Amino acid sequence: MNAQAVDQYFKDHRETHLDELKSFLRIPSISALSEHKEDMQQAAEWLIAAFEHAGLENAKIDATEGHPVVYADWLHAEGKPTVLVYGHYDVQPVDPLHLWETAPFEPQVRDNKLYARGASDDKGQVFMHVKAIEALLKLEGELPVNVKFIIEGEEEIGSPNLPKYVEENQDLLASDIIVISDTGMQGPGRPAVCYGLRGLAGIQIDVNGPKGDLHSGIYGGAVQNPLHAIVEILQSFRDQEGLIQVEGFYDDVLEVSDKEREEFAALHFDLEHEKKEIGISEDFGEKDYSFVERTWIRPTLEVNGITGGFSGEGIKTVLPAEASAKITCRLVPDQDPDDIVAKLKAHVESHKPAGVTVEITEFDKGKPFLTPYDHPAIQAAGRSYEKVYGVPTAFTRMGGSIPIVAAFDEILGLPVVLMGFGLASENFHAPNEHFHLENFDKGLRVISDYLFEVAELD
Amino acid sequence: MNAQAVDQYFKDHRETHLDELKSFLRIPSISALSEHKEDMQQAAEWLIAAFEHAGLENAKIDATEGHPVVYADWLHAEGKPTVLVYGHYDVQPVDPLHLWETAPFEPQVRDNKLYARGASDDKGQVFMHVKAIEALLKLEGELPVNVKFIIEGEEEIGSPNLPKYVEENQDLLASDIIVISDTGMQGPGRPAVCYGLRGLAGIQIDVNGPKGDLHSGIYGGAVQNPLHAIVEILQSFRDQEGLIQVEGFYDDVLEVSDKEREEFAALHFDLEHEKKEIGISEDFGEKDYSFVERTWIRPTLEVNGITGGFSGEGIKTVLPAEASAKITCRLVPDQDPDDIVAKLKAHVESHKPAGVTVEITEFDKGKPFLTPYDHPAIQAAGRSYEKVYGVPTAFTRMGGSIPIVAAFDEILGLPVVLMGFGLASENFHAPNEHFHLENFDKGLRVISDYLFEVAELD
Repeated sequence: MNAQAVDQYFKDHRETHLDELKSFLRIPSISALSEHKEDMQQAAEWLIAAFEHAGLENAKIDATEGHPVVYADWLHAEGKPTVLVYGHYDVQPVDPLHLWETAPFEPQVRDNKLYARGASDDKGQVFMHVKAIEALLKLEGELPVNVKFIIEGEEEIGSPNLPKYVEENQDLLASDIIVISDTGMQGPGRPAVCYGLRGLAGIQIDVNGPKGDLHSGIYGGAVQNPLHAIVEILQSFRDQEGLIQVEGFYDDVLEVSDKEREEFAALHFDLEHEKKEIGISEDFGEKDYSFVERTWIRPTLEVNGITGGFSGEGIKTVLPAEASAKITCRLVPDQDPDDIVAKLKAHVESHKPAGVTVEITEFDKGKPFLTPYDHPAIQAAGRSYEKVYGVPTAFTRMGGSIPIVAAFDEILGLPVVLMGFGLASENFHAPNEHFHLENFDKGLRVISDYLFEVAELD
Repeated sequence: MNAQAVDQYFKDHRETHLDELKSFLRIPSISALSEHKEDMQQAAEWLIAAFEHAGLENAKIDATEGHPVVYADWLHAEGKPTVLVYGHYDVQPVDPLHLWETAPFEPQVRDNKLYARGASDDKGQVFMHVKAIEALLKLEGELPVNVKFIIEGEEEIGSPNLPKYVEENQDLLASDIIVISDTGMQGPGRPAVCYGLRGLAGIQIDVNGPKGDLHSGIYGGAVQNPLHAIVEILQSFRDQEGLIQVEGFYDDVLEVSDKEREEFAALHFDLEHEKKEIGISEDFGEKDYSFVERTWIRPTLEVNGITGGFSGEGIKTVLPAEASAKITCRLVPDQDPDDIVAKLKAHVESHKPAGVTVEITEFDKGKPFLTPYDHPAIQAAGRSYEKVYGVPTAFTRMGGSIPIVAAFDEILGLPVVLMGFGLASENFHAPNEHFHLENFDKGLRVISDYLFEVAELD
């Protein structure tokens, strides 16, 4: 490939590309709001047209029980790997509308940033993949690899129908690598490839004591207080350093290699800046792990809420009838959410305080995800970024959970490459969402290059 | 005194007495509601008339910043002790009105029980003292002791102005014994003299972490969670048996004599019945003390409420910015509320978890109260009950706190005798409040007898 020719193509077509992206962004495809059902269909049709214009084939809209899935492919690179590109055409709601400087569905470029709902999350990033394919097909008439697109309309509402779709269309979606551009870079000018996410498991604990609230004067000291009981349970989960005391909790935690940890250390994470940002005077957690490591490669157990007793102003001397707490764990490879929930339950059972009954309710679970960071597809993405940005690529994990990524990993059994072009400052899910066009321009080149990098793998 | 003559007097005047009490009960003297301000004045004036009719002297209404205090005396028993009778003429609100079987301020006798707001708490019991005096003065022209009445109109709203009034009128109120009839018996036919109450001290603990709620995926494991921090603090307060771990907490707790504890054991408290009533399968607390002892003679520390994080349905993976808890201690003699609050604060300070800030707010305090159970005035009350009811009197304490009792004890330095005629089933503060007239009839005789018992003390 002539990289200069590709770069020139993107320069020559920049205005056209931005105009096309704006037309995509003008469609208010808010998946959460039923009044936008027709907009969802319109956005799906917009994609079909864009796919066909790019030279992709077999473009189709597949109905689901919710919003449709859009598919297209180009499969003429015989003997070469197949890349599956996942993204979503739905966007978040726009409330509070009055905080937007310009209307969310009237895209506007200011200061080389494109403002609109979906500009970065995720229409802008999906669009870049389409245009990269289009450029190569226009310039060379062919692609170095096979490509499939699967773009869904329900990511912002938790992808309720996608796992079933993937399950039922395994042959259609069969590939060698999945590429997702729906995350962010390390910072301006600092490209990152994310290769791991934490999973999720959680329970609600309900403690019941006396059948009604009691007067703490009349009964205090002789009746177990459900609030004390729940405190006793919750305290038993962690030690003062945050180390989780649930038996077997760490059994399946994969050791992370020294090399990988050295890479984390080399990221020069600015702890003081971070502490200032979130407003804490000291960080917390396992002393053998850095801030970044605690959030990327270590599992957690967090209390997300406690309720019980009197919460008004002042004093009420009540011994409450019940107390409740919600806890969630972030999991790392190879922890299994079902196994962790079973261990949490066993822990509560064996730490049940005297004088109360305890009930447990399970929450939805998500598996952790990991593509080995030295996987060729991950390293290749790093090379593509470095060629365009001129700096080494950060290989990162993320502390959060994207259940659909784990589902892809699990159902299709493929390496997933999270190749994001967003920035943390771009107001995903908030008013004035925008996309830095520097990363739009560079991203087109990174994606084009990556297809050639993947072609060299095997 | 001729006890038979007194008994006959009460029998002869029963209808008149009940009619008079009903006229008192018809006045809706709800201290909490400002629209009843004139009713408060009317109730005070009703008392003045009743005092004068009884033969009491110096009857007067003393204004306070709130509702007035009513005073009267009879001081012609030279060389004899003076008994100060405290009570209140205000009543609780009547909501929810629709649950009353008959209107709260239209007294009605059904099944030998007098139904009306204030029938038992406390107009009925105050009225008995007035009529006992009246009977003796009518029959004999004199009393065996000196008597003073102080009846306030703000007990149901926490007696905000009474301590100042008592402080400023120490000469007027100077006495040898304070008698209060505003509590209950052990049960039907089971008289009780209460000689001790627990005190109260409490704090609110506010834990602050990051400046805003954080995503538990992005930050979980590296930032202290205020909910975990408050759990750590709360758990540090007690051990699993309920024993309080605050340094010096038990230092000033008076030992209770074996004899007194034998008296408690002899009360034949029905633990199984109590457990069934409040709906617990097992009781809780210090193993060296009985259920009754834990609530009467042992101090407590109870969490009354915890708030923090997400309390809606389902899951929200938040690491909250703050958490809060309210705790109160019930105190026993000679614990001092100020000292206990200082110890609680020192405890929190020395158990402050890493990574958060902690603020403490103090609540109102109340001292514990104790008249030694073998005090002659207490034992005399027991004899008077036994003569009338024909069964031994229980000498009890109560787990709750009545701040005004401790204030009397503290300001006037007098033994307080809690000589109640109510029953726990009589719906104090609730719809269908009533008073068993058996205890009205017997109570008149107990009170009359008690004045002669006191006359024999010294």
